[in-house]
Amino acid sequence: MLQPTRKRDRVAVERAAADAVLDEALVCQVGIVVDGRPHVLPTLHARVGDLLCAHSSVAARIAAAAHPSPLPVCVTVSVLDGLVYARSWFNHSVNYRSVVIHGDAHLITDPDEKTRLLAAFVNRFGAGRADASRPPTAKELAATAVLAVDLAADSTDIAVKRRAGGPVDDPADLDIGYWAGVVPVRVTAGPPESAVDLPVPANLAPTFG
Amino acid sequence: MLQPTRKRDRVAVERAAADAVLDEALVCQVGIVVDGRPHVLPTLHARVGDLLCAHSSVAARIAAAAHPSPLPVCVTVSVLDGLVYARSWFNHSVNYRSVVIHGDAHLITDPDEKTRLLAAFVNRFGAGRADASRPPTAKELAATAVLAVDLAADSTDIAVKRRAGGPVDDPADLDIGYWAGVVPVRVTAGPPESAVDLPVPANLAPTFG
Repeated sequence: MLQPTRKRDRVAVERAAADAVLDEALVCQVGIVVDGRPHVLPTLHARVGDLLCAHSSVAARIAAAAHPSPLPVCVTVSVLDGLVYARSWFNHSVNYRSVVIHGDAHLITDPDEKTRLLAAFVNRFGAGRADASRPPTAKELAATAVLAVDLAADSTDIAVKRRAGGPVDDPADLDIGYWAGVVPVRVTAGPPESAVDLPVPANLAPTFG
Repeated sequence: MLQPTRKRDRVAVERAAADAVLDEALVCQVGIVVDGRPHVLPTLHARVGDLLCAHSSVAARIAAAAHPSPLPVCVTVSVLDGLVYARSWFNHSVNYRSVVIHGDAHLITDPDEKTRLLAAFVNRFGAGRADASRPPTAKELAATAVLAVDLAADSTDIAVKRRAGGPVDDPADLDIGYWAGVVPVRVTAGPPESAVDLPVPANLAPTFG
């Protein structure tokens, strides 16, 4: 009787790790099959509870294929954390976190639901940004495609991978005199640049990251 | 008679833009079709002249499918340059550069060619790093899979997309009082962290970025 609980725990841990990566990265890659060939489209994403949403002109392009039937997709998100220098070429590596999700994407058609999900996209630009900019008109909403994968669906498979820590060298290589270690890598935001037509003070700029 | 020349010029400009993105980003996404479904695998890449090479345990996993026949792939690389804040949700955007390549991946089997390409991978960790670490043994070389797409092949299609500059707001939105502008985003490297078992001075650490 313990097995299912343990499995449920493991799935919950995996899901929490996946959510952390999805919520940190702004860009995902959506893979679809068109005429038997692979297509990988970079686009923005936002996670809203169990829904992983993709949105862009790209979403519009593939929306036709997703409506009304769900579209099989593979959504990949990765974060590069560092470059790992080893004494040998072979043991060079990178520290990273990645999530690969296989599932079925649905086109969101309900205007209220679409508005709720788009708010999440805008809030990724900075907390509260959806309240600090104008919501869509009916026409803008109709022109916006949102695709969503239900992360909690039985048909959704989520795989998280990561590497962390220093280089792992062969013992025989330790004394050959080459530098080894890690150079951390991170995404940083520069100072906000106000739009040229902005009449209000620049100190109203949002903070990101 | 001018038409072909103009087209050749345009292709050359597009290729130069693609190379710049490929050479800047360390991580690519390789899309393949397995049993009719899309798979998108994040992995490292290196461009060596006309060859775009992918390398990782992932490459090993799909190598079987690529050898001896070429494997149809879609390789996507994107760089996020900034967050674009508009007055309306609808006009929020991101500044980015992306390359989407459709082509056929070949498995590199010649040991000398493989060594040449792997040197390019190691040199992405820092100029001269291939000379500042131990080259692979025959066994390590055999355990390493390198997949390559010929960027100059007729069957290869390269599409570069980019957005740059400030927000483009609707004229009617300009005076509604919300901040608008760009927050630049870039990847930065932190100070090198020497391996715990390193006997040589840390000032031998390479510089990256």
